[in-house]
Amino acid sequence: MIESEFIGLLRGLAKHPASRGLLDDAAVLDITDSTQLVLTHDMLIEGVHYLPDDPPETVAWKLVAVNMSDLAAKGARPLGVLMGFAMTSDSKWECAFLDGLSQALAAFDVPLLGGDTVSMPPQAPRSLGLTAIGSAQSATVPSRTAARPGDSVFVSGTIGDAGVGLALAQKRITTQDNTAHTALIEAYRRPRPNLLLGQHLAPLVHAMADISDGLLIDAGRIAEASGCAIHIAMEMVPLSPAYEVTEGKTLDARLRAACAGDDYRLLFTASSEARDAIMRAAEERGGTITEVGQVSSGRGLSLSWNGATVPLPARLGHQHGEGRL
Amino acid sequence: MIESEFIGLLRGLAKHPASRGLLDDAAVLDITDSTQLVLTHDMLIEGVHYLPDDPPETVAWKLVAVNMSDLAAKGARPLGVLMGFAMTSDSKWECAFLDGLSQALAAFDVPLLGGDTVSMPPQAPRSLGLTAIGSAQSATVPSRTAARPGDSVFVSGTIGDAGVGLALAQKRITTQDNTAHTALIEAYRRPRPNLLLGQHLAPLVHAMADISDGLLIDAGRIAEASGCAIHIAMEMVPLSPAYEVTEGKTLDARLRAACAGDDYRLLFTASSEARDAIMRAAEERGGTITEVGQVSSGRGLSLSWNGATVPLPARLGHQHGEGRL
Repeated sequence: MIESEFIGLLRGLAKHPASRGLLDDAAVLDITDSTQLVLTHDMLIEGVHYLPDDPPETVAWKLVAVNMSDLAAKGARPLGVLMGFAMTSDSKWECAFLDGLSQALAAFDVPLLGGDTVSMPPQAPRSLGLTAIGSAQSATVPSRTAARPGDSVFVSGTIGDAGVGLALAQKRITTQDNTAHTALIEAYRRPRPNLLLGQHLAPLVHAMADISDGLLIDAGRIAEASGCAIHIAMEMVPLSPAYEVTEGKTLDARLRAACAGDDYRLLFTASSEARDAIMRAAEERGGTITEVGQVSSGRGLSLSWNGATVPLPARLGHQHGEGRL
Repeated sequence: MIESEFIGLLRGLAKHPASRGLLDDAAVLDITDSTQLVLTHDMLIEGVHYLPDDPPETVAWKLVAVNMSDLAAKGARPLGVLMGFAMTSDSKWECAFLDGLSQALAAFDVPLLGGDTVSMPPQAPRSLGLTAIGSAQSATVPSRTAARPGDSVFVSGTIGDAGVGLALAQKRITTQDNTAHTALIEAYRRPRPNLLLGQHLAPLVHAMADISDGLLIDAGRIAEASGCAIHIAMEMVPLSPAYEVTEGKTLDARLRAACAGDDYRLLFTASSEARDAIMRAAEERGGTITEVGQVSSGRGLSLSWNGATVPLPARLGHQHGEGRL
């Protein structure tokens, strides 16, 4: 059984509306008439989701950040986290991990509320889990399913940096530009989801998700869940200076960026009337937002490059739950 | 670094009052003036917390049950669970696990809201995590810290069955009594925390906890957290017929029961005025409750056997997070 089959079976068990059919970034649970909780749980496994030689501070950071990214996509304010930590017998690693955890909790202003610590058998890979609990800040909590024909498609920040950072960390590629090297590795190891931006955007958008598996695969999921077609103009995909230095800004470079994953940026659709408010929200929150495409009636994902149709790559990003390394 | 040191460092990070200093069974988070959430996360690691040949249905059951036990100790009603599931490549195991998960969710009437599925490297032990979210049903949510001198100490159900069930499952001991064998293995593999009993008891008790690590060690923790002394009359420790058949009911047998762990029963203290209401709650919920001791001013745990002082065993139960096998 592969993961997608397992998740299909799990969906059969998840009948409560708060689960959103396990199709969304997070569960959304009504607590009172005016209070909705946003709940998410993500795991990191050594050798599957992070490199065994990634600095432990950054593993802790990533564990918190990937869950904060799910809250950001729901426009939620974090209330707390619970951590499941599987210890091995490497005190130095564990102390450094706790330093990174402390930094991440402070940076995202989220308290550690509880969890569990267990000891792993010798030689077993580390297994880390984090549950984040957030409070929805808008009456309608954005979902993947609400894109509408006529919407524009937007992304926050730049795309593809983490994918190149991973390739650099794995020494699959090299660069002579030390500034770019540092920035790209940092993008891979310390993603910085923008919670405040998510909260500002939530009342303005139709569909919203975080980009964890790749811009194209996540855009395709919004299209499928919403029963619409999404078109991405590849020349609009925003690249960082560091990305352009190492990878260039050709169509190929942009396709690699858009399939790379681990961006932890926001991907959303909104009507043209909301555009000004959206751009103001980005300015106020110190982020950048770029319009990269359009929603139309129909089905599926399509791409273009300066007006010419571009065939879809065979692989649009990480499949759900797939290893990242 | 051993686990207790790691947890000590974690406590330094858990300053939010909802975390209860990581000293309690669960976090208790104020959501509105009248709504308190109870949050808990427990992990099960193959070969550490369950036997590799335990039936997968029962591993799923246990994963849900141990978290429900934490909610029961807080008198909470379960609102939902999030699961972190690390897949291996054994479809038969995973299908049976999902059957058990479905049974447990139905039995405890709790919906699956979300979670994460990851693939483990080959040969790595399975790593499972579950977060349970509950809603407190009483204005004061019971804690470990609220025992008062003059209180009586009570336990629900019988003690020690799961410990003998584990020994039978591991073939460390044997019994000719098939009925007892089945009952004890079932107690180990399918603990049945009583959520409704917990909800009925919560307004009546002072301190309450679940017995996960052993009656004596958990009683000692209540004593320490409350700044009181607790005395247990060992002859009062309730044993099941199946336990008595295999282990007898001597002082030694009762000490083994009280240090065994994995009972997932409720341990609580209450004033003598509450006793009648407590016993009625047990009758209404179909459970049994037994008075096993007293709280007094002072410090620490003490034991007696029909009035004579009994020295404390060197090992009172499982240390926090220690393996169970």
